[in-house]
Amino acid sequence: MNPDASILEDGFICVSGDTIVRMGEKPEAPPRGRHAIDAEGGIVLPGLINGHTHAAMTLFRGLADDLPLLEWLDRYIFPVERGMDGDFVRAGALLACAEMILSGTTTFCDMYLFEDEVAGAAKEAGMRCLVGEVLYDFDSPNYGPVEEGLRYTEWLIRKWRDDPLVSIAVEPHALFTCGPSLLTAAGDLAGRHHVPLIIHVAETEADNAQVRETYGKGPVDHLKSLGLLGPNLIADHCVHLSSGEIEDLAAAGVNAIHNPESNMKLASGIAPVPEMLAAGMTVGLGTDGCASNNDLDLFTEMDMAAKLQKVRLLDPTVMDAETVLKMATIECARALGMDAVTGSIEVGKKADIIIVDTRKPHLTPLYNPYSQLVYAARGNDVTHVLINGRPVMADRRLLTLDLEAVMGTAREKSKEVKARVKPR
Amino acid sequence: MNPDASILEDGFICVSGDTIVRMGEKPEAPPRGRHAIDAEGGIVLPGLINGHTHAAMTLFRGLADDLPLLEWLDRYIFPVERGMDGDFVRAGALLACAEMILSGTTTFCDMYLFEDEVAGAAKEAGMRCLVGEVLYDFDSPNYGPVEEGLRYTEWLIRKWRDDPLVSIAVEPHALFTCGPSLLTAAGDLAGRHHVPLIIHVAETEADNAQVRETYGKGPVDHLKSLGLLGPNLIADHCVHLSSGEIEDLAAAGVNAIHNPESNMKLASGIAPVPEMLAAGMTVGLGTDGCASNNDLDLFTEMDMAAKLQKVRLLDPTVMDAETVLKMATIECARALGMDAVTGSIEVGKKADIIIVDTRKPHLTPLYNPYSQLVYAARGNDVTHVLINGRPVMADRRLLTLDLEAVMGTAREKSKEVKARVKPR
Repeated sequence: MNPDASILEDGFICVSGDTIVRMGEKPEAPPRGRHAIDAEGGIVLPGLINGHTHAAMTLFRGLADDLPLLEWLDRYIFPVERGMDGDFVRAGALLACAEMILSGTTTFCDMYLFEDEVAGAAKEAGMRCLVGEVLYDFDSPNYGPVEEGLRYTEWLIRKWRDDPLVSIAVEPHALFTCGPSLLTAAGDLAGRHHVPLIIHVAETEADNAQVRETYGKGPVDHLKSLGLLGPNLIADHCVHLSSGEIEDLAAAGVNAIHNPESNMKLASGIAPVPEMLAAGMTVGLGTDGCASNNDLDLFTEMDMAAKLQKVRLLDPTVMDAETVLKMATIECARALGMDAVTGSIEVGKKADIIIVDTRKPHLTPLYNPYSQLVYAARGNDVTHVLINGRPVMADRRLLTLDLEAVMGTAREKSKEVKARVKPR
Repeated sequence: MNPDASILEDGFICVSGDTIVRMGEKPEAPPRGRHAIDAEGGIVLPGLINGHTHAAMTLFRGLADDLPLLEWLDRYIFPVERGMDGDFVRAGALLACAEMILSGTTTFCDMYLFEDEVAGAAKEAGMRCLVGEVLYDFDSPNYGPVEEGLRYTEWLIRKWRDDPLVSIAVEPHALFTCGPSLLTAAGDLAGRHHVPLIIHVAETEADNAQVRETYGKGPVDHLKSLGLLGPNLIADHCVHLSSGEIEDLAAAGVNAIHNPESNMKLASGIAPVPEMLAAGMTVGLGTDGCASNNDLDLFTEMDMAAKLQKVRLLDPTVMDAETVLKMATIECARALGMDAVTGSIEVGKKADIIIVDTRKPHLTPLYNPYSQLVYAARGNDVTHVLINGRPVMADRRLLTLDLEAVMGTAREKSKEVKARVKPR
């Protein structure tokens, strides 16, 4: 995933502290007293980056599927979220971190409530993250009225400044849930602190219609009129965009996160990803939350992303495996503004590295590592995970969390969820 | 997957020989001297059924992806298949059986060359299968001219008659590769021996156009005029069908096998599955071969099948998880004419049973087993597999094949493949 897309057939990587310090062909014996991981039979690649999650929604996995959107929100998601607290979010985020590490993800970008708990969970799990409190014009069970949400976000920015793993973004929810004054204030806050601004854009036709009805313009023009289009903007979903809107986003350097499984499962539509790439936009891949996916496995997300565009455009050559793997690594890092730190294996970058064991029937024979990773591998083919130079999984054993305790707490919290669902 | 779609929360199943003899709620201690499998924390379900494979094409996995169809066929598939022999097919089929068992598939339906080797491989692996030699109007590297293909098929039928695991079908390739006389002879042979007739139908727009140009009618009318529409016909793919054609297939009792991942990856199109189901057709699920998927995991195939129809019809309620799980079990058994034997856990049926371990982060919490199996589980969450009453996998250890030897032979064969690819 370096600029030359190098593949070393029999290589080595030396890590010192949190950083990749040397690499090349022909492994050497490690210097005395150093720890070595033998990746024989494996593909060593940069840790995957999940560009859009609502981590704590792991606790909603499989709660309510195959339903009309309004019933899903009204009976299940809203009543449960209204009664939510920090403990609940931490439990869900820890479960998410466990799942992400076990499926080879080393960095995630999150939007939800009680994000300080999500940052804490990531830190405990040893994961890299970019997180931000969701902001909207109605009251939040975390911070109350929206002014407090901006204040809470600024507090997060100060609290986590200079943390080696956690970064903070300003995250207004969407154009139909945030009025112009909130959006402008959010943009100002992000600009003042030089952090990303993250928002859902054009996820459904209905969102766009509501924006058009309220403001007399489409979502991209609305963002432009508020002065929010720019390289620090990360637009999640981007499903329903015209070619003119894509040009405008590209010209402004706006980044997109594509979430194909969620867009399919919620029947939102298919994002015009090859068109965005052709226009020069940076597009990363994300899973969205587990209420609409229902997992955080970026390997199956890559598979879906590639195949979906081929059948949409009736062209087997679009979204080739190498392009898709980049969207889950270096391009996603670029979209999140983290490509100086992670997303590729290069000297000077932080050591976010995973190993995929190919000595399995479904990964045999091996002709092409890109094809194998995108079209055949699964999250649980990952055997080792290093984040920021630290081993967090070895031989599929999670080293940073007590997995049984994390799953046990999640099962307890699922009882609270069931109790809060609105009867029919 | 019984007619009542029962879910027992804490149940037991007794198997004697190859057959399920008793089941119910509240596990009992097994009778003395009997073997017991504790499925605590697991979902016990019927073994999955792969309705359409070209098993030996595992040896082409990742060889040539993201290419235009003609380059793919002309440079890769055709030159390699021309030099193929029985050893090659057996090696690929054994690799496929290993992969299928390890991902919870207990029965598969195959179409390829040297099918006696595929039957032998399935038998060695302990898998149930319905297989048939592919027939077309040009010479085959196995049997030579087409008349010999019919003779070879009849020999297969006699050889494997009364085998507990292997059944034989008559399998002309497609309407654009088999003329009317071959199709009629194939139909006669199938009718004479009361075995299924299996053929690719309407996989691509180009197939349909060629049939229309040659015969002045669409694929379904062409099959009808040859007298081939009937309940013993299994039509693979069925991507490009009009509503009138769906009505005709349904009225005749024709069965369909849906292969969403292959249809997406080859950019063939999206089969109108909800429409086929609404018309009353029996539709099973398949993976197609590994050259166009690139794996044989029916769990991810189910996920794709559900999500693809939702986004196609912009309706999150279509292809719900229960419907999709049926397409990979009882409905697929029905499509293959094997529902008296397998596809559900019922007293009197053969014991084709798998256990999915849910004690993992990506399967926690558990609200709904259908959702979990379709939207979150993966093939390698399966821990135990019984086929025809025989344990073939226990705690993810394959009991019937030497996995290292199977993978080693596949790697050797992949060198032959690479040597035969036509240079650009």
